[in-house]
Amino acid sequence: MALSILFLFLFNFILPSFSHPFDPLSPLEIQIVTSTIKSNFNLTSRLTFHYVGINEPNKHDVLLWLANPRSPPLPREAFVVARANKQTREFLVSIADGRGTIVSQSVYRGSGFPTLTFEEQTEAIDLALKYPSVVSSMEKRGLNVSNVVGSVFTIGWFGQAHNETQRVVKVLFFYKESTVNVWVRPVEGVETVVDLDQMVVTEFQDVQRCVLPKSEGTDYRASSMQPPFAAETKPINVVQPLGPSFVVKGHTVSWANWDFHLSFDMRVGIVISTASIYDVDQRKKRQVLYQGSLSELFVPYQDPTEEWYYRTFMDAGEFGMGSAAVELEPHHDCPSNAVFFDAFHGGQDGNPVKLTNAYCMFEKYAGNIAWRHTESAIPGELIREVRPDVSLVIRTITVIGNYDYILDWEFKKCGSIKFAVSLTGIMEGKTTPHKHTSEIKEEIYGLLVAQNTIGINHDHFLTYYLDLDIDGQENSFVKGKLTSFKTDGSTPRKSYWSVVREEAKKELDARNLPTEPVELYIVNPNKETTIGNQVGYRLIPGPMPRPLLLEDDYPQRRGALCDHNVWITPYNRSEKWAGGMYVDRGRGDETLNIITQRNRDIWNKDIVLWHTIGFHHHPSQDEFPIMPTLSGGFELRPTNFFERNPILKMKAP
Amino acid sequence: MALSILFLFLFNFILPSFSHPFDPLSPLEIQIVTSTIKSNFNLTSRLTFHYVGINEPNKHDVLLWLANPRSPPLPREAFVVARANKQTREFLVSIADGRGTIVSQSVYRGSGFPTLTFEEQTEAIDLALKYPSVVSSMEKRGLNVSNVVGSVFTIGWFGQAHNETQRVVKVLFFYKESTVNVWVRPVEGVETVVDLDQMVVTEFQDVQRCVLPKSEGTDYRASSMQPPFAAETKPINVVQPLGPSFVVKGHTVSWANWDFHLSFDMRVGIVISTASIYDVDQRKKRQVLYQGSLSELFVPYQDPTEEWYYRTFMDAGEFGMGSAAVELEPHHDCPSNAVFFDAFHGGQDGNPVKLTNAYCMFEKYAGNIAWRHTESAIPGELIREVRPDVSLVIRTITVIGNYDYILDWEFKKCGSIKFAVSLTGIMEGKTTPHKHTSEIKEEIYGLLVAQNTIGINHDHFLTYYLDLDIDGQENSFVKGKLTSFKTDGSTPRKSYWSVVREEAKKELDARNLPTEPVELYIVNPNKETTIGNQVGYRLIPGPMPRPLLLEDDYPQRRGALCDHNVWITPYNRSEKWAGGMYVDRGRGDETLNIITQRNRDIWNKDIVLWHTIGFHHHPSQDEFPIMPTLSGGFELRPTNFFERNPILKMKAP
Repeated sequence: MALSILFLFLFNFILPSFSHPFDPLSPLEIQIVTSTIKSNFNLTSRLTFHYVGINEPNKHDVLLWLANPRSPPLPREAFVVARANKQTREFLVSIADGRGTIVSQSVYRGSGFPTLTFEEQTEAIDLALKYPSVVSSMEKRGLNVSNVVGSVFTIGWFGQAHNETQRVVKVLFFYKESTVNVWVRPVEGVETVVDLDQMVVTEFQDVQRCVLPKSEGTDYRASSMQPPFAAETKPINVVQPLGPSFVVKGHTVSWANWDFHLSFDMRVGIVISTASIYDVDQRKKRQVLYQGSLSELFVPYQDPTEEWYYRTFMDAGEFGMGSAAVELEPHHDCPSNAVFFDAFHGGQDGNPVKLTNAYCMFEKYAGNIAWRHTESAIPGELIREVRPDVSLVIRTITVIGNYDYILDWEFKKCGSIKFAVSLTGIMEGKTTPHKHTSEIKEEIYGLLVAQNTIGINHDHFLTYYLDLDIDGQENSFVKGKLTSFKTDGSTPRKSYWSVVREEAKKELDARNLPTEPVELYIVNPNKETTIGNQVGYRLIPGPMPRPLLLEDDYPQRRGALCDHNVWITPYNRSEKWAGGMYVDRGRGDETLNIITQRNRDIWNKDIVLWHTIGFHHHPSQDEFPIMPTLSGGFELRPTNFFERNPILKMKAP
Repeated sequence: MALSILFLFLFNFILPSFSHPFDPLSPLEIQIVTSTIKSNFNLTSRLTFHYVGINEPNKHDVLLWLANPRSPPLPREAFVVARANKQTREFLVSIADGRGTIVSQSVYRGSGFPTLTFEEQTEAIDLALKYPSVVSSMEKRGLNVSNVVGSVFTIGWFGQAHNETQRVVKVLFFYKESTVNVWVRPVEGVETVVDLDQMVVTEFQDVQRCVLPKSEGTDYRASSMQPPFAAETKPINVVQPLGPSFVVKGHTVSWANWDFHLSFDMRVGIVISTASIYDVDQRKKRQVLYQGSLSELFVPYQDPTEEWYYRTFMDAGEFGMGSAAVELEPHHDCPSNAVFFDAFHGGQDGNPVKLTNAYCMFEKYAGNIAWRHTESAIPGELIREVRPDVSLVIRTITVIGNYDYILDWEFKKCGSIKFAVSLTGIMEGKTTPHKHTSEIKEEIYGLLVAQNTIGINHDHFLTYYLDLDIDGQENSFVKGKLTSFKTDGSTPRKSYWSVVREEAKKELDARNLPTEPVELYIVNPNKETTIGNQVGYRLIPGPMPRPLLLEDDYPQRRGALCDHNVWITPYNRSEKWAGGMYVDRGRGDETLNIITQRNRDIWNKDIVLWHTIGFHHHPSQDEFPIMPTLSGGFELRPTNFFERNPILKMKAP
């Protein structure tokens, strides 16, 4: 126990004083859990940890605890995914009194593999870079091997039988001489396949010598810039002379009328739980969201040729939106009034890894207006009431290789929760001998964005998991179909529209494609306002073009989360992953498209809303060599949740 | 000329020192123009001015002048719409040396009437409120007549022959006792029709006595509020210690890489002209937008019954987005770093009317990121570059009776222009005897938002006029259709999408409905980047549900601007109005749907992009008695306009 005592000493000062069942594992808890597994596991080969996080307590227990947070904390339990002996193993480990106990363990025998670790990616790259054939290929090209860097690419699944599927990745190469913008200088033609379990290069090929695009003008560092510079503007800043209005105790946040729990998970990043809003009329807190997070992020590239066809990434399940989150830069990644928080996750070896400034929280005032009116109908009176709009933002930024995803949760005093997804970073470039579009006669699957560089067409589909509990656990999903009607001719008007309510009784009724005018409600069928409207929230969907891959194409089977923009499932603690749990090389056996085929009852049940937003991205030169941010998002908006505008009685500023 | 000299004395100090052909008429110019008309016109009946604005100079002349702004100013000419002897008259008046000369005048004989004046609306209301039958109807209801207010409602067009159509409006009544929120307390059943030309009540009816909803809880003034108040947060502000970065000379604005002319028109509000962006690589200004503004705003309500069917407003043409713009409140309608500008328009009597703080300009920093990347592929190096996003916003707020429209133009350093439309204010309420939804058996065309109050279903369709001149006058419109393809089977991938370019040669080719994945480009077919891509901008469309009225219903014929979300026309100085010039009681003879039927050539022509965004609004209780802001918008984004990211060389902050 000496080890435990040491860790207690080291980490005790950051143990939260306010505990909540969804608190992420502390560094000490991570250490206890992985030590327990290591000491109980007969290590005949190397053991790598791919996921270490809390095992979500039973919802019933959490809700009981929430009703009385002074009751004893719920038992702590960890869920662990590890890899050993070429097998994926799942563990449940309970933690009590500074000790861990293995509650259960099992071998996962389905399709797909766990999230890659950062360490094994680094190891695979190192291995590939030292591989003699790679070295000689680079030398043959006249490249300085010390300037070659590698990157790991997952390779998807293309119809292989389960027993033929190995946990392999491709390591591809880029050249960093004269620029840090390696993504626009791929050393194409050279490819290695690395088996991550055995950590050996299993395949190598050097098929063709491609052109290396020039480095000039591709570096994006201020330090490498020469004049003329882009136009500058004078300093601008957000100030809060009395400090921020939010209060963070442990992982629990209070701000304005909102209370919620904020956690950070290595797979999905930010997790918001047990969010409730204070109803000033009812003088009580009312539940809105039991738990929500990003679930999966599907990025299929649209070049079907040999060196690109497999690039059909599932970023959350393959790389980890939390473990690939990057340190935020104060004043720039978040404004000066932001507060930053560190996060911890389990490293491959089981030791806690600290991510400094993993997420930030700030009040946002963009100059917008919460509500206003100028009244001129009343003679002799000037009536004008304006309420500025201040909201609370929680931001994390995940970088998957070349792309940067800025992911914001925004809580508004009017009860809305808004989600913003902003894409920036560097587009993946493919080399081409062409220097001018006039030379191009063939399909290039993208756009010539610079000499010798094609920006390849691709998509980003993000599915959010939103376990809404609107004023209670049992909810229903209603489509309000805006429908045209002819009049009876009693007035000169010939037509109008009205809302035809369609109740989704089963999972398959709920699926939606954004082609027809429809309002999407999550309601509590057991709660009404005093005048009899069903209490609810409305989804104002984000951008969602219909998917364009063939339904039976392998990437579309794995990425079926984008078959619809809305799905509803009955709550099931094990169903959290829109693309399935083990997506690396998975066959798509557990996507939303599959699990909803059971067509379970969803009326007046504890239900989960899954919302997919998407971007088709056909690159342009203006996005080279680094991409101005492109944003999209969606909103959950109270709809007959309140008796009236909940910010009517917001004081004048 | 003594009069002119007096006005010269009064207004000289505000004559712009920098002149531009699109400068709005100065107060002196307004006075000269209307005095000229008055003194040249044989006044046998009253003469009312409905529009006084500049007559847009010939585009060729403007472009010549722009190329050398030190050349003499272009001649000033005003366009005037007036009403006299029950006729609509159009005048062109030239202004030179402080004198006006009538260049042309004509009587408009087509369908529809000009924009209502503020003064005639007030007069009509006063008339109706004093009308003996109205007074007695109010007294019969036990209402205090001094607490009754009126409001003017345009009544649309429903198939009447032209010679049967009179310039009449309805004046409806509301009760202000105990609340200033008159819109939720309509005195229904009593209706008057007022002939605006004769200024007489032509019809009166008192058909039924309806319930008057209670006033309690409907007032939105801070002064009328009792605790408990909505949650408060600590002060937050935007500061610019060195002041703003924009320079305004006369009506010309320079900010960062943008230069444009900013004007204010009584019909459409903000007008942006001759906007160009400085290209740091080419070291020159490049044209983007010759002129842009809101063109029309169509608001059809969806209750086809006797008292509501006609409510199918065309706000710009009927009420004037500029003349109905309201004074902005510093610190609240726009943030503290905003600068405010006054505007002038011609009143009904021809005298200039000053609108204080008609629009504001401010730099916006919402904590967003212009571009960023963290690079972890290069061992041993921490590379992180982040550029905060600061933009320039121009805001105006127009209040049409109950609704407040917050209209923002946003210029971004990356070359994008974003347009935001935010809806707030008060929903129109219809009374009902019902106090609970369980009592409702019939169709109510909306939602019971409070006891005795139905929020009626309605739409807001906004069409923007955008005369883009992308790097020159001759442009083309291209749809990039995202199309699925099967592969040849040479790799395991079965499908991909690619962009199939469809060039719009004629007006009817260009029309678009937002149902299929498509990229919408305005390109300059005569200009290429150095690597051969057509220089262009892309429209990222705003929300646009398909219209739901029958095509042959009268409101839809007048509001055909929402038949499609994109229309392209060849530039024609006289085609500026998506719903036609004279929309009050108009037959829709000049909507976009009609004018594009000529199917003119649009390839490699000076073309205009019209973009319609829309909101279907099914009310909710949370929006009563005043509505939390609901926003939508769209973006014009450079697409191969620049050789590369134009803000790559933005200095680190």
